Amino acid sequence: MIKIGVVGGTGYTGVELLRLLACHPKAQLTAITSRGEAGMPVAQMFPSLRGRVALEFVAPQDALLDRCDVVFFATPNGIAMQQAQALLDAGVRVIDLAADFRIRDVAEWQKWYGMEHAAPQLVAEAVYGLPEVNRERIRSARLVANPGCYPTAVQLGFLPLIEASAVDLGHLVADAKSGVSGAGRKAEVHTLFSEAADSFKAYGVPGHRHLPEIRQGLMQCAQAPVGLTFVPHLTPMIRGIHATLYARLTRDVDLQALFENRYRDEAFVDVLPTGSHPETRSVRASNLCRIAVHRPQGGDVVVVLSVIDNLVKGAAGQAVQNMNIMFGLDETLGLDLVPVSP
Amino acid sequence: MIKIGVVGGTGYTGVELLRLLACHPKAQLTAITSRGEAGMPVAQMFPSLRGRVALEFVAPQDALLDRCDVVFFATPNGIAMQQAQALLDAGVRVIDLAADFRIRDVAEWQKWYGMEHAAPQLVAEAVYGLPEVNRERIRSARLVANPGCYPTAVQLGFLPLIEASAVDLGHLVADAKSGVSGAGRKAEVHTLFSEAADSFKAYGVPGHRHLPEIRQGLMQCAQAPVGLTFVPHLTPMIRGIHATLYARLTRDVDLQALFENRYRDEAFVDVLPTGSHPETRSVRASNLCRIAVHRPQGGDVVVVLSVIDNLVKGAAGQAVQNMNIMFGLDETLGLDLVPVSP
Amino acid sequence: MIKIGVVGGTGYTGVELLRLLACHPKAQLTAITSRGEAGMPVAQMFPSLRGRVALEFVAPQDALLDRCDVVFFATPNGIAMQQAQALLDAGVRVIDLAADFRIRDVAEWQKWYGMEHAAPQLVAEAVYGLPEVNRERIRSARLVANPGCYPTAVQLGFLPLIEASAVDLGHLVADAKSGVSGAGRKAEVHTLFSEAADSFKAYGVPGHRHLPEIRQGLMQCAQAPVGLTFVPHLTPMIRGIHATLYARLTRDVDLQALFENRYRDEAFVDVLPTGSHPETRSVRASNLCRIAVHRPQGGDVVVVLSVIDNLVKGAAGQAVQNMNIMFGLDETLGLDLVPVSP
Amino acid sequence: MIKIGVVGGTGYTGVELLRLLACHPKAQLTAITSRGEAGMPVAQMFPSLRGRVALEFVAPQDALLDRCDVVFFATPNGIAMQQAQALLDAGVRVIDLAADFRIRDVAEWQKWYGMEHAAPQLVAEAVYGLPEVNRERIRSARLVANPGCYPTAVQLGFLPLIEASAVDLGHLVADAKSGVSGAGRKAEVHTLFSEAADSFKAYGVPGHRHLPEIRQGLMQCAQAPVGLTFVPHLTPMIRGIHATLYARLTRDVDLQALFENRYRDEAFVDVLPTGSHPETRSVRASNLCRIAVHRPQGGDVVVVLSVIDNLVKGAAGQAVQNMNIMFGLDETLGLDLVPVSP
Repeated sequence: MIKIGVVGGTGYTGVELLRLLACHPKAQLTAITSRGEAGMPVAQMFPSLRGRVALEFVAPQDALLDRCDVVFFATPNGIAMQQAQALLDAGVRVIDLAADFRIRDVAEWQKWYGMEHAAPQLVAEAVYGLPEVNRERIRSARLVANPGCYPTAVQLGFLPLIEASAVDLGHLVADAKSGVSGAGRKAEVHTLFSEAADSFKAYGVPGHRHLPEIRQGLMQCAQAPVGLTFVPHLTPMIRGIHATLYARLTRDVDLQALFENRYRDEAFVDVLPTGSHPETRSVRASNLCRIAVHRPQGGDVVVVLSVIDNLVKGAAGQAVQNMNIMFGLDETLGLDLVPVSP
Repeated sequence: MIKIGVVGGTGYTGVELLRLLACHPKAQLTAITSRGEAGMPVAQMFPSLRGRVALEFVAPQDALLDRCDVVFFATPNGIAMQQAQALLDAGVRVIDLAADFRIRDVAEWQKWYGMEHAAPQLVAEAVYGLPEVNRERIRSARLVANPGCYPTAVQLGFLPLIEASAVDLGHLVADAKSGVSGAGRKAEVHTLFSEAADSFKAYGVPGHRHLPEIRQGLMQCAQAPVGLTFVPHLTPMIRGIHATLYARLTRDVDLQALFENRYRDEAFVDVLPTGSHPETRSVRASNLCRIAVHRPQGGDVVVVLSVIDNLVKGAAGQAVQNMNIMFGLDETLGLDLVPVSP
Repeated sequence: MIKIGVVGGTGYTGVELLRLLACHPKAQLTAITSRGEAGMPVAQMFPSLRGRVALEFVAPQDALLDRCDVVFFATPNGIAMQQAQALLDAGVRVIDLAADFRIRDVAEWQKWYGMEHAAPQLVAEAVYGLPEVNRERIRSARLVANPGCYPTAVQLGFLPLIEASAVDLGHLVADAKSGVSGAGRKAEVHTLFSEAADSFKAYGVPGHRHLPEIRQGLMQCAQAPVGLTFVPHLTPMIRGIHATLYARLTRDVDLQALFENRYRDEAFVDVLPTGSHPETRSVRASNLCRIAVHRPQGGDVVVVLSVIDNLVKGAAGQAVQNMNIMFGLDETLGLDLVPVSP
Repeated sequence: MIKIGVVGGTGYTGVELLRLLACHPKAQLTAITSRGEAGMPVAQMFPSLRGRVALEFVAPQDALLDRCDVVFFATPNGIAMQQAQALLDAGVRVIDLAADFRIRDVAEWQKWYGMEHAAPQLVAEAVYGLPEVNRERIRSARLVANPGCYPTAVQLGFLPLIEASAVDLGHLVADAKSGVSGAGRKAEVHTLFSEAADSFKAYGVPGHRHLPEIRQGLMQCAQAPVGLTFVPHLTPMIRGIHATLYARLTRDVDLQALFENRYRDEAFVDVLPTGSHPETRSVRASNLCRIAVHRPQGGDVVVVLSVIDNLVKGAAGQAVQNMNIMFGLDETLGLDLVPVSP
């Protein structure tokens, strides 16, 4: 059994991580920390976990995290970077679900996240945990930077095109739509039900923190500069990301075969038949990414539709997938969840 | 492995049954019938099942259902009663998720369902599949009448009070709210998104088919007449039933202890701590019923709050629970699903 | 033109009041106060009002409210009671949309609202602003206590039965469901979209502040004690209240005629034909209350269904209706809004 | 008073038209036809109209439409083209809310709509009813082709850029999101609440009927070929369209000034301040289009955000706006509706 600690289990990625780990046959949940809620049974805050998670939240200093095999950080940005080094020194492997170690350029990170990086020495070591790209490096990683939700959906959709040098890198467009849980479980006016229901809006058009993360991944793949316009939108649903991707084709290519071949051996990426339109609910509560690729009217524009559950493949599920890889387990262990639909 | 046939897999109880059976370690799905969709892969109609259910819909006459160990009917009312006898004669056990065998009084059934009963001889044999009441009889049943969704939530909420002779049987009130999936996957105007979203209404106040079913269950428990007012409501959510139950106390009783003791050994009924208010999402996609009991201001009225997922404990999950009991399996096999929340 | 001040225009009742007053032919909006947002254009906080409300929020001390003809308080509880006396002394009439002056028993008010009353001397003078009951007293009132949302829907549904002495007063049940906007525009976790969407729950079963308000209204009507069980529920919709009311009939009465006669001359109460089930959306964004009355299976229980828009007839619309009455205007002026459906 | 007939009043654009006309000071609703519902009071089908629309549906042959001043067709495609000529011959002006007269190239229309055109002789005469482009021609038009919902939002967003020759016409992208009411009030599975709620999907990527309509409008403006990729999406909300538009700038231009100048005199187009993100709810139930324009990171891509209510500015409201223009009324008459928010 893998002894597991979770730092910051009171948000949506935290409770989703607990849902997944509660069913994972090799996971032994040993500590969940919360500064504010120490002493409260986890199942009191999250009644959905009654009878499945018996732990109480514990103060960070009492958590004995250094005795764990792996610690997940389901915290706001800026926490993992303060604690990771000590855990690594104690031989604990770390998976950060926040953004602390995602951007390799520390100055760039500091610009977008508005704080000084507390552990720049770890940034180079950290492995970006997108298994479909970095599986081998994840296997031996001590520190995994779990990708953001938008970056997961967008990169999985663009990668086959870029790897095949099939599109104009200068003018990629990612129009992405997220369920409201992507904004987290913070009490804020703009994500109140009466504000976000029955309405739709873009946000962050001048610049969103996931832009540099996506661009970095695409540029690493292309080994060339990438021009990307990324517009996220808030959608009146709880879970789900739908990325609609646009690129100009620079050469003729069998798009369907390209995508099917790229993801043939991937357990969690499902390329749909020609002409499909994936719905976010078709991956709800599962670790799947479903993708369809179109070339409208046979023109020179390729449209890729990519859907994930932002809390699973976009966060907690991908973190467990990374854990499975890091510990030599079957990559799908504990993640063979059938999507919940309707 | 239990060889399983499903008749009518194109509705919501059907697809939910497939979701559950796809993960059940002892279930071998052998045939799914659909008159209209024969030849179509199940996963084409329900993309959430891609990679998990490889079967195609097959015409009823080609399904070889008589070679199954058990056949589930996830059909409209009036179908199972036409086919059950032949299957039973072939040694196949039958679980009907529709209403054909729920009401013991055939004349009463015919009045509420507006058709002649095609197999009145089977009504007496059929066992009402509420395990918390009829577990022993289900074990050996050939034919199980799986309860309705409202009846499950309402009966589980009222039973402890009635068994304890603690309430006035003459004036029970069950105010019940259901998600829209309870209305099925039929194309109808009143359940369109634009009709049912962001709105709330009662329906069937003059009389709903679940009224005689609930009344029968409560009367059998009470061994006395029961006066019940039942008002169902359509709620703008996909899944979930919330029953708010009102009764007048006729004697003093420790309500919390009464409920906890009644359900102490039940895997799927969770009595919440005093003062709780269960949310339907706390049981979403799981087979649980969560119950809270209140006595407002210490008066003589008891209020019970009972929530289930209408498609799981209210339909497909309870059907699998019944199958587990009928085949001597652990009752929770394949049903240890953690609710999906948020 | 009536010169109008609004204290506290940053919540949902506030913005709804502005929507209504912006179209009211006799209303001249002169000041909107907000301690926190002074200087911000109202239309910046509420883009729906761009081009229709040109005012900025102004600090209370700068608002010159004493030059208004009427001041609306769309504030949290406990504010109006501190400022009303000074305004009345200056000859300004006051309509409080909060609860400060709704309960005639000051000790009872203090118990439920958990604070000392700052203006007990005004409680007796204040007129409870339910026009269908108190129209004549409202006409000359200096201070109107605008009813709560639940109390409006519940009282309008019960009143005809109580006035006709047709029901057992000892065991009334009001099972009420509210849209999430009823909880206000405060940043709180439990009303986040991801918490409140696709779920349903009861709350406040041990006791809700609208219970004493409703009971007071019904007792005044009955001139006798009333036993009422009131259970509010949070419903995943933005606007709307649906009250489902249960009472035991004590004598035979033509229920349909009783309700139609009671409300024949009321512009804002619509009694639906026999057998109807009003939807909350049928009154969305309008000042209407629609009511249907049922006697299931001809038994001795009467079921009343009563729907309003909680922000209009349940708050801002009723406040404008009261203003119209107080200033001798046509009661429907500015309120002839056709419900928005779908 | 303008005598008005409505053909096909049983869909969402129909009921919305009735909501608007019921309040219009110059409109006299004289007949509403429905083949299937003749004899039924309109307010029975649409309870939101109780007390406001006293008409019954009448069979087309009994409607005496030729005595009207104007007839609106709120019918499926293919109906208006069969009846328009006779009405025009009788001196009645016609506004078609469907697509029969929107595409000037009859062969193109027949390809996309899959039927033969019954009145090709009227196509050239018909005026495309986008007042912000064709106001003068609408004034004297006998036959107005009311624009589609997506085309309204997309064209209003792109027009200033194209008129200013500021963007590369070869690679425009319109990523558009619609509420479910855009699919109409037909009973279909894919728009059931349980299918469309809490999910998001693209549709029609290979080709949607609004593509040729949008392209025609943009080409007419550009007087040059236009390469447009148009992807519509189904969003879990009732009303609203959000168009996110992408274009490559070909020259430097003050985008904010460009848009503000273009729409300075338009009553129903509101250009938001720099940096804004319009929400669909900010125009809910109103005839407004709100637009924001962005140039992310100062690059060469312009992003335009354009929102409308698909049933108002995208259908019934724009139709009334056209009627006002045709009959020499103030263009905003009956359309000064404040958006309903929340």
